[in-house]
Formats: sequence, structure tokens, C-alpha cells
Amino acid sequence: MNFIDFLGFSVGICVTISVIPQIWKVWKTKKVKDISLLTFSVLTFGIALWVVYGVLKNDMPIIVTNSISLLLNIVMVYFIIYYEKE
Amino acid sequence: MNFIDFLGFSVGICVTISVIPQIWKVWKTKKVKDISLLTFSVLTFGIALWVVYGVLKNDMPIIVTNSISLLLNIVMVYFIIYYEKE
Repeated sequence: MNFIDFLGFSVGICVTISVIPQIWKVWKTKKVKDISLLTFSVLTFGIALWVVYGVLKNDMPIIVTNSISLLLNIVMVYFIIYYEKE
Repeated sequence: MNFIDFLGFSVGICVTISVIPQIWKVWKTKKVKDISLLTFSVLTFGIALWVVYGVLKNDMPIIVTNSISLLLNIVMVYFIIYYEKE
């Protein structure tokens, strides 16, 4: 793996794990009042398109990290919808 | 511009604007209690690294969209810190 690919993976991991503290916070507090559902919905849609972009460019760092990111953000969107109803 | 570049820009714009509803919500309500500062800090750091990655790969969609994204997320981090103190 060259330096640019390594950087790509590091960045991807960084962005990917970034949503975990937010998921954890919502999981603990069950409160989502201040969080924008629209933000996380559009973000999730955008990340899904990043995966497609990565596939078309055959860019592994983009494909791998955004796939994980996509899963985490789907969890986040589910949490917002679920706890907003409560 | 070819299709892949067009897709890259579309995706980038999508992810970039995604934070705007969250900024708008905080701006209106002045409330950030449910939002994770750690999430937005790590995300901002990651986006800054995406810009570097884009420069090294000479990938214009990544450079342009992540630069705008970086500015918006810096605003978001500032808002969280500012309104958390209040």
C-alpha cells in the first residue's frame, strides 16, 4: 500500500468512526431533540453515493471506509426516527 | 467533465450541504445538548485530511467539496462549543 492509499484509509477511518460518539450519546440518553434528521438522512444518502463513486473509480479506501460509514449512519438515522417518536 | 467526476461533485455537494440543516437547527434553538462535540470534531479533522488526500490524488471533486464541507463543519464545532457554554 502506498502513502496516498494509507492516508485515504486513515481519513476514511477517521470520518467513519466520527459518528460513533453521537450514536453512543443517543443510545445512552435516548434524546434526539437537538439533532437534525434531515442532516443525517442527506449524509447517509451522500455516503451511499460515495460508495458508488469509489466503485466506479476503483478506489479501495473510498469503497471500504464509506461502506462502514454507511452502516453506522443508517443506525443513526434509525435512532433519530425511533427516539423522536418516543 | 465525465460522468464519474459529475457523480463525485454531486456526492460531494450532497455530503457538504448535509450539515446545513443541523447548523440551522442549532442557530434557531441555541440548543446543542444532544449533539456530540466529539463526533463533529473528529469529522472536521477527517474532512481536513480528505482535502489533503484530494490534493495528493489530484481529485478535484474531493478537493472542492471537502473544502466547503470543512468550513461548514468548523462553524458547527464552533456553535457546539459556544452554545454548550451558555
